[in-house]
Amino acid sequence: MQRWVRFRQNDGSTGYGVLNQDEITRYSAEPWSDSKVEGGRIHISDVTLLSPCVPTKIVALWNNFRELSAKLDKAIPNHPLFLIKPSTSLAGPNDPIIRPASYSGKIAFEGELGIVIGKTSRNVPLSDAADHIFGYTCVNDVTAVELLNEDPNFPQWCRSKGFDSFGCIGPVIATDLDWGNERVVTRMNDVERQNYPLSDMVFSPEEQVSLISQDVTLQPGDVIACGTSVGIGSIKEGATVEISIEGVGKLANSLSA
Amino acid sequence: MQRWVRFRQNDGSTGYGVLNQDEITRYSAEPWSDSKVEGGRIHISDVTLLSPCVPTKIVALWNNFRELSAKLDKAIPNHPLFLIKPSTSLAGPNDPIIRPASYSGKIAFEGELGIVIGKTSRNVPLSDAADHIFGYTCVNDVTAVELLNEDPNFPQWCRSKGFDSFGCIGPVIATDLDWGNERVVTRMNDVERQNYPLSDMVFSPEEQVSLISQDVTLQPGDVIACGTSVGIGSIKEGATVEISIEGVGKLANSLSA
Repeated sequence: MQRWVRFRQNDGSTGYGVLNQDEITRYSAEPWSDSKVEGGRIHISDVTLLSPCVPTKIVALWNNFRELSAKLDKAIPNHPLFLIKPSTSLAGPNDPIIRPASYSGKIAFEGELGIVIGKTSRNVPLSDAADHIFGYTCVNDVTAVELLNEDPNFPQWCRSKGFDSFGCIGPVIATDLDWGNERVVTRMNDVERQNYPLSDMVFSPEEQVSLISQDVTLQPGDVIACGTSVGIGSIKEGATVEISIEGVGKLANSLSA
Repeated sequence: MQRWVRFRQNDGSTGYGVLNQDEITRYSAEPWSDSKVEGGRIHISDVTLLSPCVPTKIVALWNNFRELSAKLDKAIPNHPLFLIKPSTSLAGPNDPIIRPASYSGKIAFEGELGIVIGKTSRNVPLSDAADHIFGYTCVNDVTAVELLNEDPNFPQWCRSKGFDSFGCIGPVIATDLDWGNERVVTRMNDVERQNYPLSDMVFSPEEQVSLISQDVTLQPGDVIACGTSVGIGSIKEGATVEISIEGVGKLANSLSA
């Protein structure tokens, strides 16, 4: 398993690299392209980690965990149910979650597994789907929950989840994650709020890539946020939310007033 | 008023230009950047017109015309209601609308006005919004209507409108369009199906840019599809749908089997 990062150096330049313990081996380009080792090693304390990829879109699933589905008394879907978070919603490790100027309501965290696409994916057969997954990351699918049902005729999924900084991903892309044996753990100010097994997913990552690629073409670096399970809650002003998955690490973001 | 186009030449190169009658004056870059005249004039019959811009996203409105709102017996919204069509849904003039391999149901046309953004737009005051609009185009907001309510708990707006080729725009971007005096006319196989006044809009283009820019950051070249009015219908296999707005021209696309 490799752990890929994207980072900014003190001179403002950005790069991609592979993280081993505290050292980054710098690569010339995005990991799914023809990327080669370049330059020496960099200590992680000498850079700022950025979102490990720059998706053209984040495809975010709803109702993809059986425990939450049962709790909400919703039928298991026949096809992944998704909305699109725009590229402008992207945030990386330690970036602030910014409260929209026009919104004073509750802002919720949702800890999730993120699938990072490695190849252009269109109508991908299930048997080929694994080959289109570059790796996995943590996602905080931040949501302005009070906007969702503000209009009685139109649930505002894209609006409530599409604000700048509401698509937090990172800290690394882990290749070959044995996701079926991992759990998503969410802590707010060090208090555990979510701790659920990824084995409870309705659609596996491979099924998601295959089925969603029949609907929208997925591009290298795009992220599928696999949906959340029980335990979501609202983020207090100033609180830090940390999403962790073993092998990926900890994604921490604070809500700035 | 200028009429901007994007085009492909026979050698495969693409460019931007201003269309006057049948002649294109070629420019060096996207019209909202530092674009300069370059080269000689090109006759329109020597190029293939492409979508006049390449949006990072298409923000598509629902319930933004009073006549359709009244017909559907829905309350007028307090804020623009939108979904996001991904960049991969883009199609240009005369591009085929491609039926998804996985879908055999009805595919609908929706003729609309498109707003093309000219500047990065975030929390834009209403008084500044006109300055963020580069111009206007025609949109066919193609929809796989039978998917929309396939799941009883989650209306699938992004899925039903997000397929490749379902975001048809063009043929030109008209600057300074006097939209309040124009109508959207949709013809299928030369039979008129929609003919509605843009003055019936709930949120004007300036209001849309101001309000939506509080929700998602709009980038140069992004398109807001202003929503449709009465008369939408399904596209027969092989039929050509033509959306026209005086000043912008005619956007024609056929559904390919």
